[in-house]
Amino acid sequence: MVTLAITDGQVLTPEFTVERADVLIDQDRGEILEIGPDLAGDADETLDAAESLVTPGFVNGHCHVAMTLLRGHADDKPLDAWLQEDIWPVEAELTAETVRAGTELGVLEMIKSGTTAFADMYFFVPTIADVVAEAGLRARLGHGVISVAKDDEAAREDAREGLSVAEEIDGMGDGRISSAFMPHSLTTVDGEYLEEFVPQAREIGVPIHYHANETEDEVTPIVEEHGVRPLAYAAEKGMLESEDFVAHGVHVEESEIGLLAEAGTGVIHCPASNMKLASGMAPVERMREAGITVGIGTDGAASNNDLSMLDEARDAAMIGKLAADDASAVPAGAVVEMMTDGSAEAVGFESGRLKAGAPADLAVIDLEKPHLTPRNDLVSHLAYAAAAADVRHTVCDGQVLMRDREVRTLDELAVRERATEETEKLLARAGQ
Amino acid sequence: MVTLAITDGQVLTPEFTVERADVLIDQDRGEILEIGPDLAGDADETLDAAESLVTPGFVNGHCHVAMTLLRGHADDKPLDAWLQEDIWPVEAELTAETVRAGTELGVLEMIKSGTTAFADMYFFVPTIADVVAEAGLRARLGHGVISVAKDDEAAREDAREGLSVAEEIDGMGDGRISSAFMPHSLTTVDGEYLEEFVPQAREIGVPIHYHANETEDEVTPIVEEHGVRPLAYAAEKGMLESEDFVAHGVHVEESEIGLLAEAGTGVIHCPASNMKLASGMAPVERMREAGITVGIGTDGAASNNDLSMLDEARDAAMIGKLAADDASAVPAGAVVEMMTDGSAEAVGFESGRLKAGAPADLAVIDLEKPHLTPRNDLVSHLAYAAAAADVRHTVCDGQVLMRDREVRTLDELAVRERATEETEKLLARAGQ
Ligand SMILES: [Zn+2]
Ligand SMILES: [Zn+2]
Repeated sequence: MVTLAITDGQVLTPEFTVERADVLIDQDRGEILEIGPDLAGDADETLDAAESLVTPGFVNGHCHVAMTLLRGHADDKPLDAWLQEDIWPVEAELTAETVRAGTELGVLEMIKSGTTAFADMYFFVPTIADVVAEAGLRARLGHGVISVAKDDEAAREDAREGLSVAEEIDGMGDGRISSAFMPHSLTTVDGEYLEEFVPQAREIGVPIHYHANETEDEVTPIVEEHGVRPLAYAAEKGMLESEDFVAHGVHVEESEIGLLAEAGTGVIHCPASNMKLASGMAPVERMREAGITVGIGTDGAASNNDLSMLDEARDAAMIGKLAADDASAVPAGAVVEMMTDGSAEAVGFESGRLKAGAPADLAVIDLEKPHLTPRNDLVSHLAYAAAAADVRHTVCDGQVLMRDREVRTLDELAVRERATEETEKLLARAGQ
Repeated sequence: MVTLAITDGQVLTPEFTVERADVLIDQDRGEILEIGPDLAGDADETLDAAESLVTPGFVNGHCHVAMTLLRGHADDKPLDAWLQEDIWPVEAELTAETVRAGTELGVLEMIKSGTTAFADMYFFVPTIADVVAEAGLRARLGHGVISVAKDDEAAREDAREGLSVAEEIDGMGDGRISSAFMPHSLTTVDGEYLEEFVPQAREIGVPIHYHANETEDEVTPIVEEHGVRPLAYAAEKGMLESEDFVAHGVHVEESEIGLLAEAGTGVIHCPASNMKLASGMAPVERMREAGITVGIGTDGAASNNDLSMLDEARDAAMIGKLAADDASAVPAGAVVEMMTDGSAEAVGFESGRLKAGAPADLAVIDLEKPHLTPRNDLVSHLAYAAAAADVRHTVCDGQVLMRDREVRTLDELAVRERATEETEKLLARAGQ
């Protein structure tokens, strides 16, 4: 057995308290063997965590990772105009090489900011899976299925690709990669296709992930056409099971909160994207009270504009308080739970808490920083003050992906250069 | 003449565009001599800015810098309970040594995050001025005057201290330190004291700075007791002049926006504090449309929980869009202006734009980062994606305060240790 020891850290427990301990990892199985004092012994590799906080790796519950290439390309526009004028025309010009470059950049950014697992909806998914397998992260990936503005044959072809991709990539990367069937949203995929293909997704045994209730503009057409709220409509289409998870959940009514809670369907809250696109404020405190599993996601970098879950956690606490009109809502402990265990549970990963037998997915955060001094409350610092650059080491599935800010599985300079080149080519193709 | 050259950077122009240029600085006068190509020549010192963005130093328009010691001490509580249960009992136990330690920590954090100037309201102000003079920043400082819960003699004594401190520290630090008369707020200082002491502040020639319209709880008592909105009340008391500036301005009505615009009184927007305390959303887009000078401030670290103006800029764009229900509101260029020129103009600093003759206050930001790749729009990156740790060099008044992340004017380790020790002593004295 090859072992890795994380030594002398302040370890975040499953109860979200902090204790001084070592973490011993079985690298063959990718699992935590034990957490406690003096475990370093004769471990094969040691990561120093003195004066550092050891936390579960962050779980980005909803992303479009290759969109890093469009970071800053078009800001400060409402969702509809932004998609139609700036994003979709560019995305029409994507190639596998573009997606490879954007995914490499995104996973590099994730590793450098302590994210060890993510859920992603995009295109050229086998390419994304290749990059993730190489980079060493854990991910649930899916092809974004869209039927609007397509003829029937093209729509069916797209949905079939969503299913075949889900089967193809499942289990890649030594089992770190899983998949889902991902209709883009309830308004961009017509009901007939949902009725036809959702049951097929159940047959191959993958969960369903989609955007829901992100803006009022997404709610109204469903209410007008079908006479029910979007999540009731989703339930009618068989898309509200306990293994499913939806992104956003901004404009949800009490009846829909009840449906989500009853079904056990997770919600991935994307606070930065919701603020930047002025979509609104998700009722996170209310959803948590109702027993819904709420996770946190960055959404794509074009509406954020970074992939740091530490930024996202702070945003979630901030907007959660405003939405509830209560400063005690969505406290530090809640966002730390949401960015680790909440996202993991919603997406269907076993990671999210540090304990014996759990996947060895973790991040080590350097506390020797002015903005993390004094150490009045480390959970508070994680929620409100820690930043991506404070992450020292990142470990996923027992493998060291970053040691002392040096990423081992990707060549950082080459990734940045390729991303720059591919962006230039992509925008030139799109005439932007 | 001793000169400093910042070479090969992408320089943010006064029009908030970016051009490739060198910046030549006269260190004796602390001014920018010239911005243009090939100026390095025989400068006495050179700071490399290749692959970096050169921006005006950030101006933190409203802070309580020594509160860094209470970072994470009490989170997730509404303003009133937080002040009365957690903050004021601890602040009652402050000493000059506590404030020195907290100020050192705060200015260290500011220098490391590219802030070169700030406005601060706190206690033991001569001690704060000493630290700022040593650390090399620019600041407008004042004593927070409070009359509530004091007898008449104590209230007067406090106001007199506000005036004497303002006279005492003005011009310290080779003129980098200026002062203001700072009644804490319109509800924590009784009208009779405002009537008596505001004219005296005018006589000694300092501006007035105070918290205004932060929460509804601050607005209602004034409307009930005086029959007018808070900023009309402030105008009656002579506290709405063009050199004055208020913090927050969350709950402002159209009539008050008109008063601020007409008077030329600046507003310092504190988005993180307003969100964390669930105070509400300031109508920033509307205030800017009305012609009000709007700056950005972090408020104290206890309600933020850091002092990075880059976090604050992102927050300002995000909450500004939500407040306006419009994704095009408070765009990237607006927040970059607000965090530099807006704050400087509101507070009364000459800094805030990079041009010949202006104070040599600037920050150099390393662009060779995954989260700042690709470089689609550097103004967008500054507003949305750049983080404190990306700041390479910080220059104030022509002096290099930080070079390659090494702070020259403070001993970082000693400052962190002193802050930790003084916090322990402070909380022990307060029994918390
Ligand atoms: Zn999305
Ligand atoms: Zn304040």
